Amino acid sequence: MDLWHICRLVCLMTQIYFDHNATTKVDDAVLDRMLPYFREYYGNASSSHSVGLAARRAIDRAREQVAQAVGVQPAQVIFTSGGSEANNLFIRGVSDSLKPSVLAVSTIEHPCIMRPARGLTRKNGEKWQLHYLAVDAAGRVKVNDAVDVLTATRSAMVSMMLANNETGVIQEVAPVAEVARAQGAWMHTDAVQAFGKIPVNFTELGVHALTLSAHKIYGPKGAAALIIDPRLPVRPLIDGGGHENGLRSGTENVPAIVGFGAACELAMSRMAESSVKTAMLRDRLEHGLLAMGATVFGLNAPRLPNTCYFALPDIEGDTLVVRLDKKGFSVASGAACSSATPGKSHVLEAMNVPPIVARCAVRVSLGMDNTMAEVDSFLAAVKHITDELKNMSALFNV
Amino acid sequence: MDLWHICRLVCLMTQIYFDHNATTKVDDAVLDRMLPYFREYYGNASSSHSVGLAARRAIDRAREQVAQAVGVQPAQVIFTSGGSEANNLFIRGVSDSLKPSVLAVSTIEHPCIMRPARGLTRKNGEKWQLHYLAVDAAGRVKVNDAVDVLTATRSAMVSMMLANNETGVIQEVAPVAEVARAQGAWMHTDAVQAFGKIPVNFTELGVHALTLSAHKIYGPKGAAALIIDPRLPVRPLIDGGGHENGLRSGTENVPAIVGFGAACELAMSRMAESSVKTAMLRDRLEHGLLAMGATVFGLNAPRLPNTCYFALPDIEGDTLVVRLDKKGFSVASGAACSSATPGKSHVLEAMNVPPIVARCAVRVSLGMDNTMAEVDSFLAAVKHITDELKNMSALFNV
Ligand SMILES: Cc1ncc(COP(=O)(O)O)c(C=O)c1O
Ligand SMILES: Cc1ncc(COP(=O)(O)O)c(C=O)c1O
Repeated sequence: MDLWHICRLVCLMTQIYFDHNATTKVDDAVLDRMLPYFREYYGNASSSHSVGLAARRAIDRAREQVAQAVGVQPAQVIFTSGGSEANNLFIRGVSDSLKPSVLAVSTIEHPCIMRPARGLTRKNGEKWQLHYLAVDAAGRVKVNDAVDVLTATRSAMVSMMLANNETGVIQEVAPVAEVARAQGAWMHTDAVQAFGKIPVNFTELGVHALTLSAHKIYGPKGAAALIIDPRLPVRPLIDGGGHENGLRSGTENVPAIVGFGAACELAMSRMAESSVKTAMLRDRLEHGLLAMGATVFGLNAPRLPNTCYFALPDIEGDTLVVRLDKKGFSVASGAACSSATPGKSHVLEAMNVPPIVARCAVRVSLGMDNTMAEVDSFLAAVKHITDELKNMSALFNV
Repeated sequence: MDLWHICRLVCLMTQIYFDHNATTKVDDAVLDRMLPYFREYYGNASSSHSVGLAARRAIDRAREQVAQAVGVQPAQVIFTSGGSEANNLFIRGVSDSLKPSVLAVSTIEHPCIMRPARGLTRKNGEKWQLHYLAVDAAGRVKVNDAVDVLTATRSAMVSMMLANNETGVIQEVAPVAEVARAQGAWMHTDAVQAFGKIPVNFTELGVHALTLSAHKIYGPKGAAALIIDPRLPVRPLIDGGGHENGLRSGTENVPAIVGFGAACELAMSRMAESSVKTAMLRDRLEHGLLAMGATVFGLNAPRLPNTCYFALPDIEGDTLVVRLDKKGFSVASGAACSSATPGKSHVLEAMNVPPIVARCAVRVSLGMDNTMAEVDSFLAAVKHITDELKNMSALFNV
């Protein structure tokens, strides 16, 4: 490593990372399990020789670990390259094997559900109809309304996330799934953010498909899964050599899949502890922010223990993010939470948050390793920045 | 590591790996460049804070490395999770943005071109017509015939691989691309096997799209690219947050992309050396095999320097692969070269190889680190196995 890299590394290492809903570091124990698969057990898992078989066995083991974490059989796990691919696989792969009819999604889905869903309505040839499941002011899908929409439109496919990435608000998926199932619809939930933070059980949710992603639970980028009910009609998004039971072709990313399995095990073993810890930090944080006059979105709804999504009056989210970054804190602005090309937050819009408030949205998402001291220094930094900005605007308004 | 793992490792480490067309190990230098991105620069490349920016810069750098290796601008590189995804992105993403018409592919394409291409002919609504470009007995696409097919059918999309994964035979892509371009067709080449073994230049090939994959060139699994002409009309296969210029959404697999870039640089720096070396080994190998009465497929066609695809009379490929594996050699049978669910080789079928010979096909694909001594001991092992099998069958025929 040259000097420049060392400086940059020191800089980043002292950064306080409060953006765990965007991605997490790979846990040491997880990386240790992955490493042998780059250089020693590097075989192609489809090869029939022993180098290939070693890779195949590692994937089998990871499949068991993932399956166990959500209470399904290993054969129900389809490995994909990411949560976005898994969500697209549900929307496009299932719709592709049905007659075009009606699809319902909540208004707060991640763009990787929203965009392919809208895409179905613009297809050449036969088109799908798309209906939305609305949320209340706290960001919760209104279950009664959702049930009405599903039955009135005779939706054949439904996708409703388990916890929202921006607000952390937990959704009542099970009752909606029950209605969907009763009318023969295929029900999916995006559990990317919920997984590892609250218990996620496929059967209890009563869904036919569920998305997980490794890099949100201290696993590597490049591995994720769509968990499916064996009866789900689904065509592959990526077709070819016939991997993953024909549902996802392409040489398996063995190290990433191994890391995903290890991360699932780790997440299950420490979820209770991590949840208590991050909730404590989160409560302290919110207490401080509320005292500064902040709005906390979804404050009274059931939420993930680690997420705090807030707005300080008259302080643009983007500005706060940049200034906090300079002071050594990594957080996300509402505008950039779920997209590579930031705009405004469709989640806050769905919650009927006035644009003037939504512009100020900032998300803190805590992790296992964050501390009370970090939260306190964060609050001090926010206080400092807001005072500064107020003084500046006072100056300009003279 | 426990004892069992150590034993397994020793076993695999002494295995002589002759299956580099299936996948390669990650080069030490490549892995070293990847490692910091798991635990130190682990940010989401779409985050606007400095942890995210470090990841973004690493991706930019890798994009330049990949672009340089095939002579294009960085903006022409769309990162995907694998070669299969990139090939599917071309077939499905381009066809999706055109009016259904005619598509032409060679008869020896990898299943991840073949299957999505066939899929287009079975779509609900408007369907595509699929035409095939035939090969000769040596496994080379017949250029004159191909030109006739393209013009007669007015094909709007063409895909023809640069080098075949089973035979290693190099195809004359440029003249076909010229005709395709002249008639306004969109031309793609799958350069997954050619890349790193022979020079690959996007402009000289005259194509509109080209597929690369990292794990075939001592890079990691989980990174690949579709290189495109900026004019190519293409819709994303995986839609969502708008990553990769809207053409491939999903949190970027930063370590894998960094490794891909590093692997490209490494491949360019040692291609000449590696090509001379593997060709020498390959020639020695084939000399020995021919002396044992083997058929070498594509023997007189221009081929990749590292690939030898052969059949020994009356010795089933699968049997030979298993027996060679026990003796410490990793090779592939023709039936399993390109699919997770082996059948017969569609490549040999396209070459009109009689089934009784095709059943015996075995592929050796050499790498940088293989040695003459390994080739010699391989030949001795093959001799030993064939003698054994002949004795056995003599016994049973008594
Ligand atoms: C709720 C939700 N769904 C899906 C995704 C997409 O996952 P990935 O980035 O692994 O493709 C994310 C994260 O980006 C997310 O927060
Ligand atoms: C010619 C060719 N194209 C495409 C692929 C698919 O690439 P990947 O396995 O990275 O998805 C392969 C290798 O498996 C190949 O040999």
